[in-house]
Amino acid sequence: MRHLLSAADLSREGALELLDVAEEMAATQAREIKKLPTLRGRTVVNLFFEDSTRTRISFEAAAKRLSADVITFSAKGSSVSKGESLKDTALTLQAMGADAVVLRHSASGAAHRLAHAGWSGVGVLNAGDGTHEHPTQALLDAFTLRRRLAERAGGDPARVLEGARVAVVGDVLHSRVARSNVLLLETLGADVVLVAPPTLLPVGVGTWPCRTSWDLDAVLPDVDAVMVLRVQRERMGGGGFFPSAQEYTRRFGLDGRRLRLLPDHALVMHPGPMNRGLEISAEAADSPRSTIVEQVANGVAVRMAALYLLLAGEDAA
Amino acid sequence: MRHLLSAADLSREGALELLDVAEEMAATQAREIKKLPTLRGRTVVNLFFEDSTRTRISFEAAAKRLSADVITFSAKGSSVSKGESLKDTALTLQAMGADAVVLRHSASGAAHRLAHAGWSGVGVLNAGDGTHEHPTQALLDAFTLRRRLAERAGGDPARVLEGARVAVVGDVLHSRVARSNVLLLETLGADVVLVAPPTLLPVGVGTWPCRTSWDLDAVLPDVDAVMVLRVQRERMGGGGFFPSAQEYTRRFGLDGRRLRLLPDHALVMHPGPMNRGLEISAEAADSPRSTIVEQVANGVAVRMAALYLLLAGEDAA
Amino acid sequence: MRHLLSAADLSREGALELLDVAEEMAATQAREIKKLPTLRGRTVVNLFFEDSTRTRISFEAAAKRLSADVITFSAKGSSVSKGESLKDTALTLQAMGADAVVLRHSASGAAHRLAHAGWSGVGVLNAGDGTHEHPTQALLDAFTLRRRLAERAGGDPARVLEGARVAVVGDVLHSRVARSNVLLLETLGADVVLVAPPTLLPVGVGTWPCRTSWDLDAVLPDVDAVMVLRVQRERMGGGGFFPSAQEYTRRFGLDGRRLRLLPDHALVMHPGPMNRGLEISAEAADSPRSTIVEQVANGVAVRMAALYLLLAGEDAA
Repeated sequence: MRHLLSAADLSREGALELLDVAEEMAATQAREIKKLPTLRGRTVVNLFFEDSTRTRISFEAAAKRLSADVITFSAKGSSVSKGESLKDTALTLQAMGADAVVLRHSASGAAHRLAHAGWSGVGVLNAGDGTHEHPTQALLDAFTLRRRLAERAGGDPARVLEGARVAVVGDVLHSRVARSNVLLLETLGADVVLVAPPTLLPVGVGTWPCRTSWDLDAVLPDVDAVMVLRVQRERMGGGGFFPSAQEYTRRFGLDGRRLRLLPDHALVMHPGPMNRGLEISAEAADSPRSTIVEQVANGVAVRMAALYLLLAGEDAA
Repeated sequence: MRHLLSAADLSREGALELLDVAEEMAATQAREIKKLPTLRGRTVVNLFFEDSTRTRISFEAAAKRLSADVITFSAKGSSVSKGESLKDTALTLQAMGADAVVLRHSASGAAHRLAHAGWSGVGVLNAGDGTHEHPTQALLDAFTLRRRLAERAGGDPARVLEGARVAVVGDVLHSRVARSNVLLLETLGADVVLVAPPTLLPVGVGTWPCRTSWDLDAVLPDVDAVMVLRVQRERMGGGGFFPSAQEYTRRFGLDGRRLRLLPDHALVMHPGPMNRGLEISAEAADSPRSTIVEQVANGVAVRMAALYLLLAGEDAA
Repeated sequence: MRHLLSAADLSREGALELLDVAEEMAATQAREIKKLPTLRGRTVVNLFFEDSTRTRISFEAAAKRLSADVITFSAKGSSVSKGESLKDTALTLQAMGADAVVLRHSASGAAHRLAHAGWSGVGVLNAGDGTHEHPTQALLDAFTLRRRLAERAGGDPARVLEGARVAVVGDVLHSRVARSNVLLLETLGADVVLVAPPTLLPVGVGTWPCRTSWDLDAVLPDVDAVMVLRVQRERMGGGGFFPSAQEYTRRFGLDGRRLRLLPDHALVMHPGPMNRGLEISAEAADSPRSTIVEQVANGVAVRMAALYLLLAGEDAA
């Protein structure tokens, strides 16, 4: 793997390999092996043009557990944001010895542009680009779902997600998480339904490999997992185009009543941070079927796997 | 020790154990053993909701000398400050593998709430919560005072502070340092007097285990140490309620004349950073009886001890 | 070497020693030895009162490759910027165990003041002070130039720069880079000409050990290297005193036509970040004679050498 730019790029084999490596990483953590020497002497640059404390810390923790050096480059106020081209930034980071760059950027496509800026030898990991993609989030969601379903039903890990039914609920229009999840889950054989008001679905959603619905109550009894998206409060109530927060909660919020519409084994997922009381109630967030905290822990394992495959990939099986 | 939340929680034995471990940490530093392997593979998260460069660096240096990984989480502008509950933050940090969280927060009680947010296995260190407490500052002050008094008089380290007379001077009302020092010094048997204008004393000060005075000149001849509090300039001269800076300096500033009222052996302490010319004159700050620079050095040793007891406590004597 | 404060302080022998050590550091990097244990347990504090992401990252990468611990102290908004004296900051950092302080400050002379603030045992590296000096930039420029000229002509490394002809072009008035380069290049025997409009030359430039010109076209055919300075856009077009951006580009910008005035072997240098289209055209920046990316890489080697000589100097040859 040279870069990890979008879930769309991942083949079924590539995605399964990453999930399997992540299982090994999680296993070392569970055995209290806190630090692996794998990436000693390698430098990972966290290049964040947007604040995203959780994602940055998750990558930082993943890199440090692999013994890499981490340099955080908060690009706000730096020469980068003062008009230096992404190409010059890329060449600079390469010259300084970066082995991988974890990029968070407000512009869709920024990770692709950075990866193809004419340099070489540096892996680019997309940590969220505009409303486009957030592939490690999709990978950690798939990892979490696969683990939970395998615990229940067993079977070949490569096929656990085949036919799994997943609802993704909320502001799909502005969500890179939704797009990456739809693409990855379809690659792994799952069956996805997007649940959102029509104004919060993207124009081209008809071409996505999934179904859509705006009746959450009708969808819930038939799913293995419901992924609740984070609502951007500032987008709600925008002059009638978007629903008000109250209306959103009434129609799309996952509360106790809706929790009871789910099959007994079904999971509740959320990428965090949650707006408790808006898109998810405390009862749903804290219920035994919630995987929200697990997702965070699995995020570190998945990012360790991604860094490993990018930087030590030739040595990998 | 599971957490270090307030000086009020420390028993005499617990406080003395921490001071003794800090002595060992200081001894390794003095022998130029710059790095101990004690906490290799452990992750310390510095979770700072307020800027406090000195305290953050002191904890960071302490953690790194014990070979821990340090992740700094400047919470300004993060999802945390965007309304995520402290509970969800706690669960997130635990899931990411934090072993200890060093918390600085503007709200009194935040460290207690974080420690009791329903998680486990993660130690919380209070690095200052509102106007409530700052226990490691009190511990480093006690450490410094004990060391200096023992150098002079010798004796059982566990009893050096018994009967020591300490004046704490200044804006007690807004000072977490003052409260933590009063509580810890009383636990260790010292005799504390607060010296402040009545408007800068908290309402419940009558229940604190100390005396109060507003006559600094009368207090100074009878103390072993005077702890000068930092003045928040922006609080001075507030419409007659607080004294003006000039009046404050005249009545409560430690200058050369007041220095000469102290007994020969008495110490001058300040938590830093100083407002030279306001609460302390250059003559006092730089005099041989000043321990201000020692306090900074001892802060690293005390924080090493606190991290050690939190994270390697079961192995400790 | 106790401090590295200005190029003016460097003797010919001292400068050559640093460049030779930097060659060794670059050689270890080229052999994929990513990490040297040299400074294990040492603490380097990056004390940045101005944003300078590139310089900070370069020093951070250099320190980490030598296995030092790095603590970043962004001084904006800290007690330091709230009026604490540089002396108290110095004593605090020393007490916390800093072995070296890398200082970036907007005030000319700040590094000298910090180095002579009455402390000892801590090395100060000037990473740019006001419009005064930026010695590691000059050293990495000299390193790059020496390497390239030696590749072409061979000869004793200590004498390669003797007689080399270098043009420094642009806003010399506000450039610490220009000043440091002039001083260091003259120490190493090179022949420097400053090319700038008279309003962008400092008043005392007549005393500098170099020539001046404002005719770039006349200078270019006779140089071994042209160093293009970064233009501060906000200084351009200031009411007629400074040229407009368009006029600046026309008279002092290095474009394709001017590139062809240079001798075949001559190099194009720039400290970065570039304003493409203002002081340098894309054709010049990306031409084979451009050393701009090499300069960045060499910056890490030079800073490794500086940290090594400061902190492990007694053991050095």
